[in-house]
Amino acid sequence: MQTLLIEGCDLLTVENGNVRFLPHQDILIEGTYIKAIGPTGSLSVPKEATRLSAQGLLAIPGLINTHAHVPMVLFRGLAEDVTIESWFNDYIFPLESNLTPEDVYWGALLGLAEMIEAGITYVADHYFFMDEVAQAVSEAGLRANLVWAVFGHEGEQKLARTVEFVKRWQGTAEGRITTWLGPHAPYTTTPDFLRLCAHYARDLDVGIHIHVSETAAQVAHSHQLYGMSPVRVLLESGVLEVPTLLAHCLYPEEEDYKILADHPTGIAHAPKTYLKLGMGTAPVSRFRSVGIPVGLATDGAVSNNTLDILEQMRLLALTQKDAAHDSTVMPIAEVLAMAFLDGARVVRQDGVLGALKPGFLADIALLRQDRLAMFPRYNPVANLIYSASAQDVDTVICNGQVLMQNRRLLTLDRERIKEEVQRRLERLNQRVPGRRIATYPV
Amino acid sequence: MQTLLIEGCDLLTVENGNVRFLPHQDILIEGTYIKAIGPTGSLSVPKEATRLSAQGLLAIPGLINTHAHVPMVLFRGLAEDVTIESWFNDYIFPLESNLTPEDVYWGALLGLAEMIEAGITYVADHYFFMDEVAQAVSEAGLRANLVWAVFGHEGEQKLARTVEFVKRWQGTAEGRITTWLGPHAPYTTTPDFLRLCAHYARDLDVGIHIHVSETAAQVAHSHQLYGMSPVRVLLESGVLEVPTLLAHCLYPEEEDYKILADHPTGIAHAPKTYLKLGMGTAPVSRFRSVGIPVGLATDGAVSNNTLDILEQMRLLALTQKDAAHDSTVMPIAEVLAMAFLDGARVVRQDGVLGALKPGFLADIALLRQDRLAMFPRYNPVANLIYSASAQDVDTVICNGQVLMQNRRLLTLDRERIKEEVQRRLERLNQRVPGRRIATYPV
Repeated sequence: MQTLLIEGCDLLTVENGNVRFLPHQDILIEGTYIKAIGPTGSLSVPKEATRLSAQGLLAIPGLINTHAHVPMVLFRGLAEDVTIESWFNDYIFPLESNLTPEDVYWGALLGLAEMIEAGITYVADHYFFMDEVAQAVSEAGLRANLVWAVFGHEGEQKLARTVEFVKRWQGTAEGRITTWLGPHAPYTTTPDFLRLCAHYARDLDVGIHIHVSETAAQVAHSHQLYGMSPVRVLLESGVLEVPTLLAHCLYPEEEDYKILADHPTGIAHAPKTYLKLGMGTAPVSRFRSVGIPVGLATDGAVSNNTLDILEQMRLLALTQKDAAHDSTVMPIAEVLAMAFLDGARVVRQDGVLGALKPGFLADIALLRQDRLAMFPRYNPVANLIYSASAQDVDTVICNGQVLMQNRRLLTLDRERIKEEVQRRLERLNQRVPGRRIATYPV
Repeated sequence: MQTLLIEGCDLLTVENGNVRFLPHQDILIEGTYIKAIGPTGSLSVPKEATRLSAQGLLAIPGLINTHAHVPMVLFRGLAEDVTIESWFNDYIFPLESNLTPEDVYWGALLGLAEMIEAGITYVADHYFFMDEVAQAVSEAGLRANLVWAVFGHEGEQKLARTVEFVKRWQGTAEGRITTWLGPHAPYTTTPDFLRLCAHYARDLDVGIHIHVSETAAQVAHSHQLYGMSPVRVLLESGVLEVPTLLAHCLYPEEEDYKILADHPTGIAHAPKTYLKLGMGTAPVSRFRSVGIPVGLATDGAVSNNTLDILEQMRLLALTQKDAAHDSTVMPIAEVLAMAFLDGARVVRQDGVLGALKPGFLADIALLRQDRLAMFPRYNPVANLIYSASAQDVDTVICNGQVLMQNRRLLTLDRERIKEEVQRRLERLNQRVPGRRIATYPV
């Protein structure tokens, strides 16, 4: 079994809501797990261990991206300053009709590389041509929960094919890949279709990852069609009986809190997307107060522009303080608890991910702390949240394997990926009248 | 006269609200001014010109920070998650009572270095011990408008000393330093004190830089004391007869728009501070619609944590879209116009700063565009606003002098500054009961 010693780092942990910043620590990794952590020089280390000097670096749990459409990096910058309806109908859905499986593969590699460079070691991805995304994840070395997005109009046969995808990839890539089902949203499916999804998910013993209640208009639309909120549609169709990852959920109704709290749910929260599309702010504190975990997410790069969880941490703090008109809301410890522990809960990996401690999987990001914007270091945790950027990430480890060291990607060929993507761009950015993968109805 | 040729860069200009992105340009600098701009290889260049290869870099006007308290980087991270009243009374004012002139000098150098690394070439700074700040600006090589902050309780003698500061430093450092007067705010002075400031400013032919209407409570307080808004206090005390830079102004009253539009005013807007302190959002579009220029600002690092105008550009777009619940508000072209041209108008440098064109001062930031988060490059301007970070700034030129090249500071000794600051930290972070420089009254 491979042994790796990370030497001399600072280390950040959150336990019971308390942040602990421990200077000068060693982390011993055996195989894919953290074996021991202690003050520098204090651990008993096998002679054959590989040593990785981390003097001055800050070790945090590998960041968890609870909702993304990774290959959409292919369209970064193509839909700026437009309404959400136009964003879907004039840009995203027509552009996505251009995609081939091979495009998605290279787009996935590009997005995964960006995420590794930003310290992300886990992504819950919701897209299509997911065999290619799974292949890319397998090569990139990070961890992912993958779902093949399916719209109601694509029919039951298509849904059945996404079930085959679940079976094909479940537990592959040394266990780094898990697979769930991914009906797109209540507003792009029907209750019967969702019922069938829930049936399949129970049979497969997997969860469901779905967009829900993103706008007030969607909620009103649901009431018109079904006489109930989108969350209740999920309840009544049986979806919430399986683990359910709800993307966004900005507009829960009063009864939705209890419904979600009574079921195995978690919410993916992507504040940069909400700001940029003028969608409003999710009631994060209320969700948390009733026990619904909320993790951080980047969404796709066409709304968010970057795949950067550190930026989402900063924007989580800033937007929640702003919405409450109260600077004491969402303090540093809560931001960390959400990013680390709740992120792990949302993707059902609590107990193995989201903290640096013995027995947890060895998913670790190491950040430089020497920039002027992070000096003085009275409060290195405030520096992490309010000053650090993705470019401060120096080294990234996932499942015990070093994916990036000293900002050099070890599993992926950065320039090759850029070249392959570049070749495809001219074809990909065409919007052919009438061609689109779906219609946004609200 | 020194001649510098920047070769092969991309170049961003905004004219009449239109953004132009010009690839493969050369910029010829003669002395302190831009002499000519044209496609690579097209300019007639003197043999003795120094050549600076900028292949792949994006040239933008040196960024303008319209309101800061630069030396407050010394206290970065010391006042997190507290109310605005506590922020002033329990943290900032007590901490500032520890400062010596020499502390301010080293703090200024630290903050100026951070700003150069972030592409900022102009700062309007509002602090005290300003001789030391001026000395630091002189050495650092960037451009600054400096005011010595004065509270009403410090009295007329102290105000007279800030007048001496204005005279001492006006036009120094090869013309890079201008000086104005800096009464702290209407809520920390009196109308009579402000009247005296206005009198001095007229005599000196300089402007006034002042905080105003930061919170709704301050406006209510002003009505209680004086029966009018803080903006009207400025009007009636004669302040607005001279060029006035208003920091923040989040809570203008209806009549304030006309008052400000009818006078030589400009507003400094620092969205990260407003989010973090839960202060609300300024009516930026309304100000602009009546012709009041609004520039971007970092405020001090104890509220903002970083001195980063690129981040403020991004947050300007995001917060204005959010406040309007409309993703089409504050489009990319408007963000650039505010950061570049309006920033220059706010500090009264329009016509010489805020654009890259012949006859303008040679203040230029050159940014790398090769990060994965800035790829593909369908829309390099969207990448600049939504993906770029201060760390993408590669080279900075101010007044024709290269201040940073390939991320190496040429005028300042980064490590020396950190060491000198580090030596002072333990003394600086003490809060002695009863010791403070002022009291926040509202």
